[in-house]
Amino acid sequence: MTKINDKSKYLHIDGVSINEIAVKLKTPFYIYSETTLSENYLKFKEAAIENKIINPLICFALKSNPNKKVVKSLAKLGAGADIVSGGELKRSLECGICPQKIVFSGVGKTEEEINLALKSHKNGIYSFNVESFEELELINKLAAKAKKTARVALRLNPQVQVKTHKHISTGFKTHKFGLLREDILKNLKQRKYWSHTSLVGLSIHIGSQLTCLKATDKAIKELCQLALETGKSFEFFDVGGGLGVDYERTKDKPSCFDYMKLVSNALEKYYYTRTNDRPRVVFEPGRVISATSGHFITKVIRTKTSGDCFFAIVDGGMNDFVRTSLYGAYHEIIPIKKSKRKVVSTDIVGPICETADCFGSGIMLPKLMANDIISVSDVGAYGHSMSSNYNMRDKPREFFISKKGKVSKC
Amino acid sequence: MTKINDKSKYLHIDGVSINEIAVKLKTPFYIYSETTLSENYLKFKEAAIENKIINPLICFALKSNPNKKVVKSLAKLGAGADIVSGGELKRSLECGICPQKIVFSGVGKTEEEINLALKSHKNGIYSFNVESFEELELINKLAAKAKKTARVALRLNPQVQVKTHKHISTGFKTHKFGLLREDILKNLKQRKYWSHTSLVGLSIHIGSQLTCLKATDKAIKELCQLALETGKSFEFFDVGGGLGVDYERTKDKPSCFDYMKLVSNALEKYYYTRTNDRPRVVFEPGRVISATSGHFITKVIRTKTSGDCFFAIVDGGMNDFVRTSLYGAYHEIIPIKKSKRKVVSTDIVGPICETADCFGSGIMLPKLMANDIISVSDVGAYGHSMSSNYNMRDKPREFFISKKGKVSKC
Repeated sequence: MTKINDKSKYLHIDGVSINEIAVKLKTPFYIYSETTLSENYLKFKEAAIENKIINPLICFALKSNPNKKVVKSLAKLGAGADIVSGGELKRSLECGICPQKIVFSGVGKTEEEINLALKSHKNGIYSFNVESFEELELINKLAAKAKKTARVALRLNPQVQVKTHKHISTGFKTHKFGLLREDILKNLKQRKYWSHTSLVGLSIHIGSQLTCLKATDKAIKELCQLALETGKSFEFFDVGGGLGVDYERTKDKPSCFDYMKLVSNALEKYYYTRTNDRPRVVFEPGRVISATSGHFITKVIRTKTSGDCFFAIVDGGMNDFVRTSLYGAYHEIIPIKKSKRKVVSTDIVGPICETADCFGSGIMLPKLMANDIISVSDVGAYGHSMSSNYNMRDKPREFFISKKGKVSKC
Repeated sequence: MTKINDKSKYLHIDGVSINEIAVKLKTPFYIYSETTLSENYLKFKEAAIENKIINPLICFALKSNPNKKVVKSLAKLGAGADIVSGGELKRSLECGICPQKIVFSGVGKTEEEINLALKSHKNGIYSFNVESFEELELINKLAAKAKKTARVALRLNPQVQVKTHKHISTGFKTHKFGLLREDILKNLKQRKYWSHTSLVGLSIHIGSQLTCLKATDKAIKELCQLALETGKSFEFFDVGGGLGVDYERTKDKPSCFDYMKLVSNALEKYYYTRTNDRPRVVFEPGRVISATSGHFITKVIRTKTSGDCFFAIVDGGMNDFVRTSLYGAYHEIIPIKKSKRKVVSTDIVGPICETADCFGSGIMLPKLMANDIISVSDVGAYGHSMSSNYNMRDKPREFFISKKGKVSKC
């Protein structure tokens, strides 16, 4: 829980004063709240149960935040993992996620990565979410060599247009992801694909930061229709991830409950009423679990007034956190000390030599001064995981506040 | 020199077969040509001399490519460095660049970084290019503490709009960079700024990848007018960097010669005809020196046909090279083997789970197959320097072809 402590006037996260940490530790840094992380995971899970989703498997999308303590913490709660690389597979395993709760997505799985996944458990991983028949042929070949049967799901490209940033919309027919319906139906019996693989599921994933559920309904409809057309029964349907976060605090975004209700209703309408098959449901949430658990703490190096513009130049840059530059994303900025200073329009900029290196422009804040510390909110997803060493800067460090309020490096 | 060898049909860089290297080394990787790097540097320098630029100092912008061998190679040719962080300062010094050839730009110089620069030589560095009076006050204070006189240039914000990507246009009045003319004139005599600093120059830098010189002319005019208004004489004028590269091979971009001619004419017209002061000229080129020296070598993992789309999925991703995602940049793609296969429209995409992870869309190429190797051209600037570990992928390695044709890791 993040709030300004009434007595000290400083921002506290889970009872920990960010000022005290920032004085001790060198800014900039990320800090994650285990409490928020757990709450987000449990809220997601409970929403599934409340909406009578069948035996939900919640696979956390590591690409949003592969930090060890974050992943370990979710593993303890029973989470699985949605992975997209050999690196993420190794990280999941070392953090205690059971291979039988791991789904492997991504268009570019290599031979080395597939072998690693096949060998992670006697039955391999829970599912290779297959993105092309060329990939399936390779998985089949490698499984044959390893004398195993690989569990696979076919990722359907449901050909829906999604209202999100164009970089992270992934379910349209011109996108590299997934398989077209007609190609799936055509290739269901070809021996070169299926001698050492077992078709256990179907999957979809139409994008990230989705804030309108219409496209999700349409995509699930496509998935269900395809499932019926195959005439097969399935162990699971993987409905992907992508539920959006209310970065702008507009309170008009669908909640976990809204989302689960829609998924449940869609499956009922498009599938359960037409067949006796009852696949379990797999989810791949990333952002909705990790985003609000993270804060990026950065210090004002100096301020600068130039004509009508007032800049607070902070020690964090676009190398540390790239979402504002790359996607034009909004993230709430909170000075960590309550102040009665005059509120002025402020540009929060970093030290990187690019105009894009800006955390927020024209933000109304009590007038900042050198050494003031601010928190950039909701950066637990696609924050540190996308950081770089641009301008030969060190990557920012990461800290973790445990449920008991203990702060540790991670 | 990059060309397809007529005999072997494979792409060669400086006589080195990229196929031979790619078979030995794990893709993806960057490879830099020392020959091209030197040629670019010398072409830039010679263009300055031919256009009678006074005593040019060419400070390579390390942010474009801080690779050790790249910087060492330029240091040997006499280059200075344009740096923007303590990391880049250390790198310049370890690569043999003389502190008296280093200019330090950037809005967010910290106390630690300023001290490091002051201590790098008995006279400190060649120049702190100052971006705010708050910064100048700090430099003055730290120089006093160190019992030194810091050499500074004031970076003028010339308030020009530049035709380039909005992320890398840096000379407009709403940008965080530089000082406004009126603020400079007002603060030229305040003791708190000048007791331990010496105003040796004026500087401008209006953006990167500039392909039209009109704004450069206007910015130099502003710089000269300001210099005249101060009534001072200057050791140097730093005209910044930013000359663009002809990524698209349209051959309509200004050459180094065109650029130097413009700089020379502008200084003549706006300054030399009005005063006897003859400052030397400092340049901060990055991209124009390093871009064409670099190639990103990546292998096709598999191909995929989906409806009308043909994808070549390569083992390099946006974590390795982000310019196409971040700026929508164009980079020529060359299969490293000459082929008589049918030419088809191809999307070159990486394994990262984002639609933006694409090196080129609808490119006409001989139909690619698994294990084919391609080269992404002109990636020597803002390539590896912006790479990340997104999706828990390792950063790509870097290799260097020396003038003698020796390939080494770097």
